[in-house]
Amino acid sequence: MKELSSLDQMIEALRRLPGVGPKSATRMAYHLLQHDREGAQFLGNAMLNALQQIRHCGSCNTFTENAVCDTCADASRDTSILCVVESPSDQLMIEQTMTYKGLYFVLMGRLSPLDGIGPQDIYLDKLIRRATDGVVEEIVLATNFNNEGEATAHYIGETLKAKGLKVSRLARGVPVGGELEYVDPGTIARAILDRKST
Amino acid sequence: MKELSSLDQMIEALRRLPGVGPKSATRMAYHLLQHDREGAQFLGNAMLNALQQIRHCGSCNTFTENAVCDTCADASRDTSILCVVESPSDQLMIEQTMTYKGLYFVLMGRLSPLDGIGPQDIYLDKLIRRATDGVVEEIVLATNFNNEGEATAHYIGETLKAKGLKVSRLARGVPVGGELEYVDPGTIARAILDRKST
Ligand SMILES: [Zn+2]
Ligand SMILES: [Zn+2]
Repeated sequence: MKELSSLDQMIEALRRLPGVGPKSATRMAYHLLQHDREGAQFLGNAMLNALQQIRHCGSCNTFTENAVCDTCADASRDTSILCVVESPSDQLMIEQTMTYKGLYFVLMGRLSPLDGIGPQDIYLDKLIRRATDGVVEEIVLATNFNNEGEATAHYIGETLKAKGLKVSRLARGVPVGGELEYVDPGTIARAILDRKST
Repeated sequence: MKELSSLDQMIEALRRLPGVGPKSATRMAYHLLQHDREGAQFLGNAMLNALQQIRHCGSCNTFTENAVCDTCADASRDTSILCVVESPSDQLMIEQTMTYKGLYFVLMGRLSPLDGIGPQDIYLDKLIRRATDGVVEEIVLATNFNNEGEATAHYIGETLKAKGLKVSRLARGVPVGGELEYVDPGTIARAILDRKST
């Protein structure tokens, strides 16, 4: 079998990116070679550098270049409350609300038995060690509200409640600014069941 | 201003890829770091290696690792006819029809005055030198059948006819507005057979 050319290897490598098929990978490779060789250099260096530099935060499990990430190292955060999210992006969304001052644990995924993603893949042991450090009092489960996120929240919640921790879940309901006409019936049903007295 | 972290640099680098926005770039970076570090390594190495190895064919202008590409070096091709295409993908589509035995010239783009892409950006001087080598008798213009491709074909056609060359254009079996990369080989084959002198 003929060895792959440098160009073929470049296209194969780009196909490893999620959501990139053979046509896109080919288009990307041609674009970089023809119009943005500097970008290709930047991409190559950034990949190799990131692999060397980036590890998981020893405390919250997010990506960081240090033993502990900036958020975990921030002495002004409330250490008694731990918010469990699926990804760094979800953590960022919560940070942007400016309403949460506790710490985080980033699962880097969600339980998905059909895809072979079990408790060890979402760092459950690390989460248990973190949550039972004697300082954390409450866990806020902020996984997504789809099937897998709900199942993940349920599994983690039961596990941590068995360790004597207080566990809560983000409230569900009609989005702020949401018009009932455009909200799905499942959300409205949940909002009715979870109604709060005013 | 704070220096970009390795992760931010990785995301910035992925955004240089055509069609990749901030959300996709972030998702790609997390995926590679979390689930495919080997893929990230492959991508990094493939980029840097490609930049070192890949140059333009001295004859047809396509990407190659040698002074002259495999197609141009193939002694069985008909050297009297030269097919002008916009990209290596378009050349590949024509090759797949198995109906064309001549050689190619790859413009690596098309004229687009609004984007500042002029004759020098599509290697017109190199094409003229190639086409006037005394061996080439006919030029088949196989640029795309959209506005820019047609304008490019017209411009090149007039230039080469002024040099005394016979110039033809793929027949309009290709749908108007269609891009070669997305047309079935049968249609392209018919268009080659029906090519018309211009
Ligand atoms: Zn951390
Ligand atoms: Zn060539």
